[in-house]
Amino acid sequence: MLKIAVIGAGRIGRIHAHNIAAHAGATVAGIVDPDTAAAERLAAECAAPVISLDQAFAAEAVLIGSPTPTHADYIERAAAAGQAVFCEKPIHLSAERVRTCLETVRRAGIPLMIGFNRRFDPSFKAVRDRMAAGEIGKPELVLISSRDPGPPPIAYVKVSGGLFRDMTIHDFDMARYLVGDIVEVQAFGGNLVDPAIRDAGDIDTAMVTMRAANGAMVHINNSRRCAYGYDQRIEAFGEHGMLQAGNRMATTVEASGGKQTGAKDVVLNFFIQRYQEAYAAEVEHFVACVREKAPPIAGFAEGLEALRLADAALESLRTGQIVRVHKG
Amino acid sequence: MLKIAVIGAGRIGRIHAHNIAAHAGATVAGIVDPDTAAAERLAAECAAPVISLDQAFAAEAVLIGSPTPTHADYIERAAAAGQAVFCEKPIHLSAERVRTCLETVRRAGIPLMIGFNRRFDPSFKAVRDRMAAGEIGKPELVLISSRDPGPPPIAYVKVSGGLFRDMTIHDFDMARYLVGDIVEVQAFGGNLVDPAIRDAGDIDTAMVTMRAANGAMVHINNSRRCAYGYDQRIEAFGEHGMLQAGNRMATTVEASGGKQTGAKDVVLNFFIQRYQEAYAAEVEHFVACVREKAPPIAGFAEGLEALRLADAALESLRTGQIVRVHKG
Amino acid sequence: MLKIAVIGAGRIGRIHAHNIAAHAGATVAGIVDPDTAAAERLAAECAAPVISLDQAFAAEAVLIGSPTPTHADYIERAAAAGQAVFCEKPIHLSAERVRTCLETVRRAGIPLMIGFNRRFDPSFKAVRDRMAAGEIGKPELVLISSRDPGPPPIAYVKVSGGLFRDMTIHDFDMARYLVGDIVEVQAFGGNLVDPAIRDAGDIDTAMVTMRAANGAMVHINNSRRCAYGYDQRIEAFGEHGMLQAGNRMATTVEASGGKQTGAKDVVLNFFIQRYQEAYAAEVEHFVACVREKAPPIAGFAEGLEALRLADAALESLRTGQIVRVHKG
Amino acid sequence: MLKIAVIGAGRIGRIHAHNIAAHAGATVAGIVDPDTAAAERLAAECAAPVISLDQAFAAEAVLIGSPTPTHADYIERAAAAGQAVFCEKPIHLSAERVRTCLETVRRAGIPLMIGFNRRFDPSFKAVRDRMAAGEIGKPELVLISSRDPGPPPIAYVKVSGGLFRDMTIHDFDMARYLVGDIVEVQAFGGNLVDPAIRDAGDIDTAMVTMRAANGAMVHINNSRRCAYGYDQRIEAFGEHGMLQAGNRMATTVEASGGKQTGAKDVVLNFFIQRYQEAYAAEVEHFVACVREKAPPIAGFAEGLEALRLADAALESLRTGQIVRVHKG
Repeated sequence: MLKIAVIGAGRIGRIHAHNIAAHAGATVAGIVDPDTAAAERLAAECAAPVISLDQAFAAEAVLIGSPTPTHADYIERAAAAGQAVFCEKPIHLSAERVRTCLETVRRAGIPLMIGFNRRFDPSFKAVRDRMAAGEIGKPELVLISSRDPGPPPIAYVKVSGGLFRDMTIHDFDMARYLVGDIVEVQAFGGNLVDPAIRDAGDIDTAMVTMRAANGAMVHINNSRRCAYGYDQRIEAFGEHGMLQAGNRMATTVEASGGKQTGAKDVVLNFFIQRYQEAYAAEVEHFVACVREKAPPIAGFAEGLEALRLADAALESLRTGQIVRVHKG
Repeated sequence: MLKIAVIGAGRIGRIHAHNIAAHAGATVAGIVDPDTAAAERLAAECAAPVISLDQAFAAEAVLIGSPTPTHADYIERAAAAGQAVFCEKPIHLSAERVRTCLETVRRAGIPLMIGFNRRFDPSFKAVRDRMAAGEIGKPELVLISSRDPGPPPIAYVKVSGGLFRDMTIHDFDMARYLVGDIVEVQAFGGNLVDPAIRDAGDIDTAMVTMRAANGAMVHINNSRRCAYGYDQRIEAFGEHGMLQAGNRMATTVEASGGKQTGAKDVVLNFFIQRYQEAYAAEVEHFVACVREKAPPIAGFAEGLEALRLADAALESLRTGQIVRVHKG
Repeated sequence: MLKIAVIGAGRIGRIHAHNIAAHAGATVAGIVDPDTAAAERLAAECAAPVISLDQAFAAEAVLIGSPTPTHADYIERAAAAGQAVFCEKPIHLSAERVRTCLETVRRAGIPLMIGFNRRFDPSFKAVRDRMAAGEIGKPELVLISSRDPGPPPIAYVKVSGGLFRDMTIHDFDMARYLVGDIVEVQAFGGNLVDPAIRDAGDIDTAMVTMRAANGAMVHINNSRRCAYGYDQRIEAFGEHGMLQAGNRMATTVEASGGKQTGAKDVVLNFFIQRYQEAYAAEVEHFVACVREKAPPIAGFAEGLEALRLADAALESLRTGQIVRVHKG
Repeated sequence: MLKIAVIGAGRIGRIHAHNIAAHAGATVAGIVDPDTAAAERLAAECAAPVISLDQAFAAEAVLIGSPTPTHADYIERAAAAGQAVFCEKPIHLSAERVRTCLETVRRAGIPLMIGFNRRFDPSFKAVRDRMAAGEIGKPELVLISSRDPGPPPIAYVKVSGGLFRDMTIHDFDMARYLVGDIVEVQAFGGNLVDPAIRDAGDIDTAMVTMRAANGAMVHINNSRRCAYGYDQRIEAFGEHGMLQAGNRMATTVEASGGKQTGAKDVVLNFFIQRYQEAYAAEVEHFVACVREKAPPIAGFAEGLEALRLADAALESLRTGQIVRVHKG
């Protein structure tokens, strides 16, 4: 049994703690959260104790689900303790800080996994696996549509690092998951959803185009608001055909009436529902990697590279030019 | 050029006349209709003369699109004249009369095709052809859904021969098209759409179950009213899988919004639109059969057998029992 | 916390035990199974003790997931103990035995729920709820397709009570769930899948037609073998439109290539996967009903009525006639 | 009857001539083509004479379906003759030449329609009309996927003006059709299909991103080769939802078997099939505009603006920068 301390009893910490508790080969070593009520509630649900940060860093492994600014520091504490780490994305909003953190992790040689949950979505994973098996031949065009049901609070927007680092970061990683390293990034941004987001210095709508080292072109589109739910789709086109992965609905019901036919439910809303299976698979992968001393498919490098693409997109937005990306 | 006289300038006569006029290997020999205005208009559209019945029966071939009670008589006149005949279904509402007519046709040896247009629908034909090619193995379950957008006028209901002979007749033929001869028929009927139809002595909703000689079971469902258009679908299930053919819409547009996703158009309404390609293919097949002296895929026997299934369904409705059908 | 003893550590007992263990308001009082290894394994997974039958009937509630022949006896023991009971379908293969059991249950006044899991499938439930809300108006045509991926072992077939009581029983209940009481039943059966099933005295393929008291007609089709998985679909058609609920696949991936487009995964196989959410919802409903002293939506009457429809279908198969059904 | 001379008896001339011949309010004044055999065959099919160029420019209206380099000259001859003109796209590969031609047309005041057939596709037109009716609110993200089944001959590539002017030109016009004037263009290009296309100085794969004056962002992706047919889709996303228009297949058949479910036909291949209804609607619109002296929805300005976007995309490809576009 891998004993994993969970830092953070918020939305994402809760998901992970429950998945650890339900895992046959893992157990929750304890819950840490400055909000003691939240910590106690989650601890009770997982039949685990509330513990201190010091105790967390004494466990076999640690899952970091606390706010972003703490991630790099906590990773370094875990590195010092020689723990296996599962850290939510992003590692830090500053690529510089991520790099110093990476140095520490490398020296310590600890296993570290970044929470790029979408890599574990059964549909997206199937697209990747079928691409890897050659089903569409060499990939040429990849389209990623990623639209949130509604914008986060402005207070969050202000500390989020911006759309590219906060939201598109998943799509940057998805692009790398599907076609590997990226060499060129070009970005369009706009404020079409809420003027308050512009006032907070961020964009709410974007299109990004990228070129992969293997020649494939990637398009990403984002919106901070989507009337029909949490829209998460990918399309990969290559010499021999196309693979598409679409949305999930609560039911398979289709309605036909006097005005239309085949109308389906709105899509699952929000990430907790959409990526429920992905979150469970993610914990399973982490436990397996630790047990088998295997590198996770989303490690530190993935966290760094996705952040560098976000930074490249920001630079492109500022300059109107294609930004060349050289490997990390 | 096959010169085909067209008897009947109503809705169905018009379709056929236009398809003949557009056919590279056929031409409209003339139009006959007691409604001279209709005959003249259609004749003008097809660059053909208005002709008399006698002239029609002197042409190379004749297309009979006049009211049902005239069909058998006109077929016999064509037989006497040695003409090739394309006759709209049904041949006659009385199986007895159909049989005497068949005798005449057989003695005359004329080519005769019955207007079972659905056999020429590209989707239904593809299902049949793929079944014939073995794609689903031996067929086991066949489902035919056939629902009209709205009931015909009561005056028509009264002379129609009833739902089974007027509407289900197409589905009986479709069953035979897909799985061959039928040996057992069982029918449920009801009046769920319009009490006036019951008052006229007919049903407006039905489910029919049949067993084919090859063992396959067939389900048909009918309604005289369908809120979302002219619903025409088939599903064939066998050892190796399933083939389904669905409806056509005016566009491929799918709409997603706050209440639903992927909502499509209502289905094409009515048979003129839905079976537009089938009507053209039907005329093409007729011309090809006459030219190549080949038997049409929907000949006199198909007309007779479909009628016998309708009669069996009526008997089942009356007795509550399965009716055995022996080949015509 | 409702303490529920689980009788049976087989496939279905395991599902229920895990769902009880995961339920915030319930706990597994203990596991009973003559196969002690199975009982111990499941008990360990649920952090519950292995208990005796006597202990099981001393718990607050009991879940009966043992073989069918034991169901009625165990229900009566639970009735004597005044326990709440969740019993897997069917109660017994003999309607007579079911009736005597029902008497005992009524006298004891215990809450009893029958495991008609499909009533809890989110998609089927949504169809029912939307019908109840009037979305399609008065229901007129209902189609239920229910096909197993492959036939059970012949040994099971021999004691199963036959296709209608073992497999179609779910569809009979689904029909009642959607359109209420049934008044007429007509059945076609055949042996198209495996001659060994015929040799065992059973059919493997069927079509059943029924009329509901409200006038709606219902079609059911069954096969004991389905190449593309566990096919479970319903279609409800009424004055204002149609609601359809379809299959679930492991992923949403659609593949397009040189020979076809939009090819999806095979459907989830088998009931454990397909009805995973339904099983959890079922336990949730049971716990809620016991807590709130409310009648379950699938009680003893539902078990009896479904069995009576199965018996009517068997009689129709024997006589070739429509069988009238009068309420229980 | 509008008498329209048809210049060009090639693939596109044939479509238009047949649609004119089938039109109730128009007739083919004659066919011109240096390939006299082709001209004679088409003339016979349309019951029209073979005529000279001089005779063509003496007709009421002229349809120019000859090779691109002749378009501007022929338009000017038609302008001198005061004829109504339907000219296939593009007007000319040089924006400069297009502008001088436009001057001539403006001075002459003749009605001129450009063959942007996709504006007449029922599905694309429905998306536009429903957007115009406010169904999705202000448009924010538009995705246009446009992939040819296979590359044209290299000889054609060399004189085509390049991918953007030859193929993407339709997508540039579609973007303007959906969201109006474009103010920014950014392009990625590559050679992923055939090295011979690169050797001919052209690209075969592209992604273009644009910003419209109304703020909407538009993505276009192109490939000169598509394994599953002629892929032509659009997606428009706005505040209130999304409208998508997809491909058409020859049938509605869906196949399910041991490896997959719901597999559809490959998509219609090629533009003659895919845009069959659009071509007919286009001729209808032209005849109606001439008759009612109304401006066509695809006039000279549309031809010019699409070409300017193609030129902007080429410039962006060269510079790696966003190119600002000011109205023509």
